Amino acid sequence: MLDLNFTGLIPSNMEKRGELTLKDNLAIIEEIFNQRKIPKEGLDDDKIKLLLKILSLMDTDKDPKVIQIGEREARIASKIQNELVGGFCHGIGRSGNLIDAQPKAPGASIMYALTNKILESFLKNLGLKVNAIATPVATGMSLALCLSAARKKYHSNVVIYPYASHKSPIKATSFIGMRMRLVETKLYGDAVRVDVSDIEDAIKKEIKENNNPCVLSTLTFFPPRESDDIVEISKICEEFSIPHIINGAYAIQNNFYIDKLKKAFKHRVDAVVSSSDKNLFTPIGGGIIYSRDREFLREVSLCYPGRACATPVVNILVSLLSLGMNKYLDLMKKQKESKKLLDDLLNELAKKKEEKVLNVKNPISSCITTKKDPVDVAAKLYNLRITGPRGIRKNDKFGTCYLGEYPYDYIVVNSAIGVKNEDIMQVVEKLEKVL
Amino acid sequence: MLDLNFTGLIPSNMEKRGELTLKDNLAIIEEIFNQRKIPKEGLDDDKIKLLLKILSLMDTDKDPKVIQIGEREARIASKIQNELVGGFCHGIGRSGNLIDAQPKAPGASIMYALTNKILESFLKNLGLKVNAIATPVATGMSLALCLSAARKKYHSNVVIYPYASHKSPIKATSFIGMRMRLVETKLYGDAVRVDVSDIEDAIKKEIKENNNPCVLSTLTFFPPRESDDIVEISKICEEFSIPHIINGAYAIQNNFYIDKLKKAFKHRVDAVVSSSDKNLFTPIGGGIIYSRDREFLREVSLCYPGRACATPVVNILVSLLSLGMNKYLDLMKKQKESKKLLDDLLNELAKKKEEKVLNVKNPISSCITTKKDPVDVAAKLYNLRITGPRGIRKNDKFGTCYLGEYPYDYIVVNSAIGVKNEDIMQVVEKLEKVL
Amino acid sequence: MLDLNFTGLIPSNMEKRGELTLKDNLAIIEEIFNQRKIPKEGLDDDKIKLLLKILSLMDTDKDPKVIQIGEREARIASKIQNELVGGFCHGIGRSGNLIDAQPKAPGASIMYALTNKILESFLKNLGLKVNAIATPVATGMSLALCLSAARKKYHSNVVIYPYASHKSPIKATSFIGMRMRLVETKLYGDAVRVDVSDIEDAIKKEIKENNNPCVLSTLTFFPPRESDDIVEISKICEEFSIPHIINGAYAIQNNFYIDKLKKAFKHRVDAVVSSSDKNLFTPIGGGIIYSRDREFLREVSLCYPGRACATPVVNILVSLLSLGMNKYLDLMKKQKESKKLLDDLLNELAKKKEEKVLNVKNPISSCITTKKDPVDVAAKLYNLRITGPRGIRKNDKFGTCYLGEYPYDYIVVNSAIGVKNEDIMQVVEKLEKVL
Amino acid sequence: MLDLNFTGLIPSNMEKRGELTLKDNLAIIEEIFNQRKIPKEGLDDDKIKLLLKILSLMDTDKDPKVIQIGEREARIASKIQNELVGGFCHGIGRSGNLIDAQPKAPGASIMYALTNKILESFLKNLGLKVNAIATPVATGMSLALCLSAARKKYHSNVVIYPYASHKSPIKATSFIGMRMRLVETKLYGDAVRVDVSDIEDAIKKEIKENNNPCVLSTLTFFPPRESDDIVEISKICEEFSIPHIINGAYAIQNNFYIDKLKKAFKHRVDAVVSSSDKNLFTPIGGGIIYSRDREFLREVSLCYPGRACATPVVNILVSLLSLGMNKYLDLMKKQKESKKLLDDLLNELAKKKEEKVLNVKNPISSCITTKKDPVDVAAKLYNLRITGPRGIRKNDKFGTCYLGEYPYDYIVVNSAIGVKNEDIMQVVEKLEKVL
Repeated sequence: MLDLNFTGLIPSNMEKRGELTLKDNLAIIEEIFNQRKIPKEGLDDDKIKLLLKILSLMDTDKDPKVIQIGEREARIASKIQNELVGGFCHGIGRSGNLIDAQPKAPGASIMYALTNKILESFLKNLGLKVNAIATPVATGMSLALCLSAARKKYHSNVVIYPYASHKSPIKATSFIGMRMRLVETKLYGDAVRVDVSDIEDAIKKEIKENNNPCVLSTLTFFPPRESDDIVEISKICEEFSIPHIINGAYAIQNNFYIDKLKKAFKHRVDAVVSSSDKNLFTPIGGGIIYSRDREFLREVSLCYPGRACATPVVNILVSLLSLGMNKYLDLMKKQKESKKLLDDLLNELAKKKEEKVLNVKNPISSCITTKKDPVDVAAKLYNLRITGPRGIRKNDKFGTCYLGEYPYDYIVVNSAIGVKNEDIMQVVEKLEKVL
Repeated sequence: MLDLNFTGLIPSNMEKRGELTLKDNLAIIEEIFNQRKIPKEGLDDDKIKLLLKILSLMDTDKDPKVIQIGEREARIASKIQNELVGGFCHGIGRSGNLIDAQPKAPGASIMYALTNKILESFLKNLGLKVNAIATPVATGMSLALCLSAARKKYHSNVVIYPYASHKSPIKATSFIGMRMRLVETKLYGDAVRVDVSDIEDAIKKEIKENNNPCVLSTLTFFPPRESDDIVEISKICEEFSIPHIINGAYAIQNNFYIDKLKKAFKHRVDAVVSSSDKNLFTPIGGGIIYSRDREFLREVSLCYPGRACATPVVNILVSLLSLGMNKYLDLMKKQKESKKLLDDLLNELAKKKEEKVLNVKNPISSCITTKKDPVDVAAKLYNLRITGPRGIRKNDKFGTCYLGEYPYDYIVVNSAIGVKNEDIMQVVEKLEKVL
Repeated sequence: MLDLNFTGLIPSNMEKRGELTLKDNLAIIEEIFNQRKIPKEGLDDDKIKLLLKILSLMDTDKDPKVIQIGEREARIASKIQNELVGGFCHGIGRSGNLIDAQPKAPGASIMYALTNKILESFLKNLGLKVNAIATPVATGMSLALCLSAARKKYHSNVVIYPYASHKSPIKATSFIGMRMRLVETKLYGDAVRVDVSDIEDAIKKEIKENNNPCVLSTLTFFPPRESDDIVEISKICEEFSIPHIINGAYAIQNNFYIDKLKKAFKHRVDAVVSSSDKNLFTPIGGGIIYSRDREFLREVSLCYPGRACATPVVNILVSLLSLGMNKYLDLMKKQKESKKLLDDLLNELAKKKEEKVLNVKNPISSCITTKKDPVDVAAKLYNLRITGPRGIRKNDKFGTCYLGEYPYDYIVVNSAIGVKNEDIMQVVEKLEKVL
Repeated sequence: MLDLNFTGLIPSNMEKRGELTLKDNLAIIEEIFNQRKIPKEGLDDDKIKLLLKILSLMDTDKDPKVIQIGEREARIASKIQNELVGGFCHGIGRSGNLIDAQPKAPGASIMYALTNKILESFLKNLGLKVNAIATPVATGMSLALCLSAARKKYHSNVVIYPYASHKSPIKATSFIGMRMRLVETKLYGDAVRVDVSDIEDAIKKEIKENNNPCVLSTLTFFPPRESDDIVEISKICEEFSIPHIINGAYAIQNNFYIDKLKKAFKHRVDAVVSSSDKNLFTPIGGGIIYSRDREFLREVSLCYPGRACATPVVNILVSLLSLGMNKYLDLMKKQKESKKLLDDLLNELAKKKEEKVLNVKNPISSCITTKKDPVDVAAKLYNLRITGPRGIRKNDKFGTCYLGEYPYDYIVVNSAIGVKNEDIMQVVEKLEKVL
């Protein structure tokens, strides 16, 4: 496709050497299209940019011979904008379907199809044999897409939601106009959980009232709220033949969650939603939806009204190519070590301060109780330029349990993938001063 | 804020001259923050990039002293991604509200607030005294936000839709789970319109059945479908106290539409949705929603579940700063001239070919009849690398009228803002060969 | 060389369309390597960057499989630096010869060879059938290279210099350690010229003293100093068999100079030096040297000690590709018109102020006399943010004639290629206030 | 200088937090101008780019109110070119002097003055209390500048050159038209050195013939040629009052050389030339010249005829800011370790192959003898994509000693600053196959 005539410009032995080097560089890009898998070792930025540039040169707005007389021809005011969308000014999607190829944008369409393929190979490497789509919207809106698809395909009209204090799923449900039935949490020692039999009861009640429920369960959340028992919920959903959507916002960074997902996938899981920024090191704005049910994913993709900005999808592709599988596995390993470090330091601190580290199963975050006002503590940490910790008062009506009270005031600290050990050490140091 | 010590590095008269030049350059950026209006003359790319850079250096992920231990800290895999979002890795919005300031992203929050201010000044210069928000999603999803807000605020449960053959509004309605009641089009000479009294009847019927209807009218569409009479519809909505959302996808590029909007705003218009790419020369992916009803706009903004990618909003800001008001007014003028050129050329062609240019009011697009298969003609034009024209068969069930037949097979050609006269001439030339 | 497997990612008709667009985009680059001529129409920045990127991927420091254990392996501290040299971290040249291919940098070597080819085609289009090399140093140092080559090849030991008040040639001569013999200027009406017979006398004297003179003549200079009669000088140099170097700093932007060069090339011209920034719209730092004598050019290239930064050469390539021939011819036409405008405005001003426009042949610059202190006038203009004009006192010992006095105090104003008519109008307006 | 009015756009506590972050980011840049020293920790690319952008906005070609009517106004054909020179389109230097401030370019002038200050602080941190200038030309041309300055200031007319097989110094001397007197090397065991008393003899001879010699000594070279005894040479030059220029191409990366320089500086050293790419990780094209004799440096700077491209100087600034002192010291430490690794591996290899590692003092490079044709070995290594090693035949007339024969065929391998241990291991592995 690229036939460059260098003959006679430099001595032929050097020319051959140069061509060999060029070829080996281009081969890195060719390999991506041949394999359509996440590379073992990440690509450098230069190669990734070149790959994006090549693809963007396939879109009609880059056609040197094009005649454009439509009203939506990806005309732009400034070259800055072309950079901001990775060259894909026509966005992604077709009015009919998010993942359908767009006739005006063959390059963007290939980019999107490739991203989804690579995403699937990435998930497969993590042990999840699923279909997947990258979405141009973040977790909240991605959940809305899944719930709306459940309504369309299965006539679901009520969302059973084992309560977690998370606005996005609640707003997603409200946005698409479905009713939500909350299932209350209970206290099990320090841990806050939703009893699976309560979920089952809620399903039965709705069915009895001739409704079509679906379940939106939560896999990843801040302690002391523990993960929903998605394996059992999947079995129940299977039994009652009702859709099951899992909110796994940061599920794919730790095997604790991945193992649960693997087991759940054996029963009824229509879709899992994870965040691209929380797991894949993209800027905020994209999501990933995955499932064994290819048909349901297609339904999800059909829900999206119109086209979307290409950037969130490009960001996902860039992360996958830039990290490579080995780096990601390494980061997962480090995350586990960081969590251990965090727990060790917090336990030390708890002893000193006569507090306790809450006994809650969570592979990412930990809680320490406080005798001070936790909201005040969090504000102080913010002013100390620490971002991330949350301070929750025991009597915060929506903070921990739904409407109930929790035994302790506490502070949540995270050691998510990508966190630096240095930052963990510093935050515990600062906590010591503030608590 | 920037105190640079150049003393003694070069002779002081040159230093002063350099500082003066620097100051005048920075003053261009300061002026934007002081005025918060669209500049008369556009800024060059360098200044716009500098403005974005300064703002992005206010976000916590750019804080050189930050300690990050959260799970959503805008960590990124590659610098490419920082470029792709204009430096705003934390995106925009807060889980509570799209336009609320995000504590982790003061810079992105200012960027967004500034964009909305400048957008309002731009619309005011066009004669529209409205509140406005730039949305991180395109027209279809922006309509979904408006309809969902109408449901939340006014309990609307059915969308009255004077039929236009446009998938996005229909999908938007379906996505958010509202019922749609279509109102049929009728033929008035060549023109296809929806009778206002039919809309009124539909409203009455729904109200009678104890429903809460809202109206989604269409201002901009391909001929032969003419604009809905939004002024009359606004009066009716006022009378019945029901929400009125206007789909004005490419409304702000031509005074024909703007004048209608001005009149409609005197009655009931809850929100108008326009596309950022069709009007403002951004890549696809953003929208603008505007209204005199600030409260309703806030409701719209509250609908969005979670945060979003900053890029579509940055693109809108870049367009407004890059074009400036004078350039935009000039482009509007040119668009009018282009439409005249297009009509003149099509009329000539119609004479030659014994076809006719449909007699339909539309300031952007025109139709010419064809004796050949219009779908075939459009395909041929696509292969000739012409993007934009549409070929519609008279008996296409959803092509022109809803379920009805139209008297002619025809081809639609557009002269939207930004189209080149050269391209218009070329497309008519090619049409001559193909028709 | 680039075999991208898109199969199955999108429908094959779209794939074909995308491939066609990509191919046509890449063809623009292929064409440059096939033709090795300045394109008629300039390329856009994106294509030029892609061409540079492809070439830079041929250098050994970009080799993904390279093992580098030398001390000069183009290791860099920051990616910024890679951008600053267009990707060519190994620079250009080999210790032996500036234009020889560098084994570590096949890509940079091709880039340089290509630049020289395109430069030659550009000059040919201007009517100059010459060999040419782009130099990584500006005019002054390029003259030093030519003079040093003349010494090496012809044992020249003295430079005959018809005096022009220009530091660079004098410093170039001093730098390379040659003696300079000045030939005095004379007054012919308003014009200052060097008599050709005086040059001939100087040559004879030097030869008589057993020296080997060469001549460094000046084609382009500020009025009232007129061009040296390079045609006659070329004849004399031919007759005496001595080298002749022409300083044609901004010679290729106007046919007045080009015509003189064409005629001079029929006799003895060893090399002409022109500035890349004054003629070709590059940043300062590069030069071009051209001649019919390929052997002499090679000698010039052999003079350069070591390698050099690639940037000045890349800048020349970028200009040639970006402008294209048609744009350059258009700019030449506009320059002529600007000069006419300048003269008209200055004549008007002269009448008003009872001054006169000096009667001197110069296609670029004009002089107006002043009764005020010209140095003071120039300083005022600088403070009014006007760059370019020069104010010369009649009794400035080195300002106009060598050691002599000129009849008038005067101000020089230029209308060089690229100047804006608006700026010409403004400068004369300001002059009116200041004079 | 930058007064940004953010009031009212976001809540004031967030605004303050954002302003604090911005301020701390800008403080990093302010600190550079306040300290004018190499920072301990390097700056990230974003900050460096911002610093360059700010400075470039001081040049007259960036003045939004400028009127340009000169012939050299830094007009450019493409924005690519502005990027290629770091925004400094006016280059550096004034026709009178390389380091003088250029009235058209206050920003570039400050950039250059700042670079020299930072360079001096960097050298001071290495123990060299000297004045220094960054040059826009590489080592060879920088030597030419020094020699020409010696001629101008001290009327030197012959360069005494203790022979090293290096083309650049020889070409530099020839370029500026000075005679060179070679002093022959001798064999001391494996090592090749020039006897200091031979240098003294050469000086005396030239003086006797009424010439004004200067000495160009070599500090850094490939083994088996060892460093000239610059301390003794400095003493001799002091005694005879003749200029002494040291070619220290890669001298500042290792204390072996730095210590020698410190001692030599106590006697007569007029200037040392080092390469910016070999020591400071810039692309090829810049140099640094340093000396205790500020006056001589000024003379050097006055030699340069005209202005020069800013890029080589910007590259030096970028390296100093990007690396920071700590990183550089760390790299020096690693270089020493790499050299040890290299020697260990080569000694092992020598045993296996019954060759020997030459016993030569050199802190960077090592030689291993070979029974094969060394030129052939080097070619094979080149084809194995190894860059850096040199293969020298014992009877190469200019390869080791001047005109003489060396006892062994050998291969030189380097472990210069920045080399990777991995590459050292690989090259010895490949050597094992090839030898």
